[in-house]
Amino acid sequence: MSVPTVGVIGGGQLARMMVPAAIALGIEIRVLAETEGSSSKLAATAVGDYRDRDTVLEFAREVDVVTFDHEHVPQDVLQALVEQGAKVHPGPHALRAAQDKIVMREMLAEIGAPLPEWAAVANADELQAFIDAHDGAAILKTPRGGYDGKGVRVVRAGHDGADWFEQFDRLLVEELVDFRRELAQLVARRPSGETTAWPVVETVQRDGVCNEVFAPAPGVHGANGRLAEVALDIAERIATGLDVTGVLAVELFETSDQRLLVNELAMRPHNSGHWTIDGAVTSQFEQHLRAVLDWPLGDPAPLKPHAVMVNILGGPQHGAITDRFERAWRHHPAAKLHTYGKSARPGRKVGHVTVVGDELDEITYQARAAAACFDDEETR
Amino acid sequence: MSVPTVGVIGGGQLARMMVPAAIALGIEIRVLAETEGSSSKLAATAVGDYRDRDTVLEFAREVDVVTFDHEHVPQDVLQALVEQGAKVHPGPHALRAAQDKIVMREMLAEIGAPLPEWAAVANADELQAFIDAHDGAAILKTPRGGYDGKGVRVVRAGHDGADWFEQFDRLLVEELVDFRRELAQLVARRPSGETTAWPVVETVQRDGVCNEVFAPAPGVHGANGRLAEVALDIAERIATGLDVTGVLAVELFETSDQRLLVNELAMRPHNSGHWTIDGAVTSQFEQHLRAVLDWPLGDPAPLKPHAVMVNILGGPQHGAITDRFERAWRHHPAAKLHTYGKSARPGRKVGHVTVVGDELDEITYQARAAAACFDDEETR
Repeated sequence: MSVPTVGVIGGGQLARMMVPAAIALGIEIRVLAETEGSSSKLAATAVGDYRDRDTVLEFAREVDVVTFDHEHVPQDVLQALVEQGAKVHPGPHALRAAQDKIVMREMLAEIGAPLPEWAAVANADELQAFIDAHDGAAILKTPRGGYDGKGVRVVRAGHDGADWFEQFDRLLVEELVDFRRELAQLVARRPSGETTAWPVVETVQRDGVCNEVFAPAPGVHGANGRLAEVALDIAERIATGLDVTGVLAVELFETSDQRLLVNELAMRPHNSGHWTIDGAVTSQFEQHLRAVLDWPLGDPAPLKPHAVMVNILGGPQHGAITDRFERAWRHHPAAKLHTYGKSARPGRKVGHVTVVGDELDEITYQARAAAACFDDEETR
Repeated sequence: MSVPTVGVIGGGQLARMMVPAAIALGIEIRVLAETEGSSSKLAATAVGDYRDRDTVLEFAREVDVVTFDHEHVPQDVLQALVEQGAKVHPGPHALRAAQDKIVMREMLAEIGAPLPEWAAVANADELQAFIDAHDGAAILKTPRGGYDGKGVRVVRAGHDGADWFEQFDRLLVEELVDFRRELAQLVARRPSGETTAWPVVETVQRDGVCNEVFAPAPGVHGANGRLAEVALDIAERIATGLDVTGVLAVELFETSDQRLLVNELAMRPHNSGHWTIDGAVTSQFEQHLRAVLDWPLGDPAPLKPHAVMVNILGGPQHGAITDRFERAWRHHPAAKLHTYGKSARPGRKVGHVTVVGDELDEITYQARAAAACFDDEETR
């Protein structure tokens, strides 16, 4: 009997969390990890550089479908994979939008997705002109290499981007959006076209890193809410318009005047969907595997009215993270703890906590209190 | 940082289903499997004979706690493990009751658990005497080696046990219980004493093999139902009385006159608890790992009012089991499919389907219909 085999490039926690879903379904999962002892070491069948064409081509020969833990595989390597006959999901075209923020804005503008006002600027003068046209302040982003708050800064003068102009031909500049909160809409899409969506969620960042997720976003009532409808429409338009396959996360600003604007995209399972492991009929990790294998997608319905996820950032400086389980569970038995097999480091995502239930206030308290058991001053 | 390591003896589907829970928590799991290519091959760090003392002792040296996929590790090997200083959960004393049905009846009688009328018989005359005293029929069981309907038969005369008396000194004989249905009560207990229980479930057998599970058992209303209270009391008394650690499954007869009698015990995760993976806050596999590590136990609450689990027995004779996913999911998107990486064989448990929801009739239909997609005439 032949077992469907999915190859995941990148050995981080997203690959790690695909493994339980693969075991349940009876899929074979193989991971090309960057290092020994990665988060997904249990499924790491190869260790190598995802930028190296031969390494990636060799890895892909043994699998039915190639997918990703991150969006950083270079376009020439992706193209070589396709030429070798590999099924690659998401494909190179879609991934261009996740790899370069200027390309993303261009592609999103083309399909009519609502965006903050933006421009690609090549020098301090162009940047200054944009700032002048936008009340003296703007957000500047490097086109590549940004994540978790890196590669993003507020600028008030053209020379504020001097260091980055040395590294990049063009930078992305955007208006400072007056937003009420941040939302994320996750959808999954299979190559033959079916899409399915989880409820839109609210995300709360800390120092540019996702810290808390509330599912569904409070005040957004199922499919009846206008915001929920708009968020879903935007995400589906992007998934279809960019031919995204697998899970797509669309990070959105909810503006003070109740509009939704696209902030970022991720073409893989996303931190804002971790709650689905414990809180939805079909988790984002199972759905991603089903989508990239072009299998029917599962029911994304939540299991409880509310789910709250809080990241464990940093982690205990001394001892193992599991040493804190006793403390966390003694008072919070409903807390679902997830750890990623990573050592502690300030601000690093080393795990998360999810609590599901009927009362948002109660589960928010439980999730925060359980996550706080893993906090140390040194690594916060 | 030191990672807690659990060693599982036996590489079947129960060990396999512990792996996702271990990954989520960041526990290292190592399996001593019987063969290469076992159900739990992803975590199989050793292949060897669980009856071989040296093999087991060697395996145990590298782990913090030893637990089991099955109850068949011989007592002398278990004792050697304890003498070597290994933490073994459940321990040898408790496992005696799961290894020998006569010992089980003796130990259960001692703690006052309600049992069918039973006797240990050494020959045809003693068997005939029991049959004569019980309206001309009885259930005969081999003390060891029985599972899934094997080692159990209805007898009507003393000579009906002739072949088994050649193999065993004593056989267990029991009254033919007039039962309305079969129930199972699962509890988990940690070495320091805490116990926790899932709702009692109804189990439906086919040819002596568990086929369907309804959670909670219909007509048993939470903690208010008398039957639920009695079932819980029996299981907790057994867990404590026999010093069981980890998950304990107590299979019960609900008699026509509404009494509960203990049928069988299992000291490990159990088929009647597979629904907890998709249907409870804490699955039996996570709970088992937490219990054997002496960690606080998790919330066993169901996520939905009802869960129905249907086994995939036999499996497709031709092609891979995953080839049927398309068919199963197209019409039953809420079906959670689980496969065990086993080849098809008549009556073999190769996977299961769980559906959770608010309407028992609806989810029963969905679970049965999805499971039927994997049925072939040849392997039924």
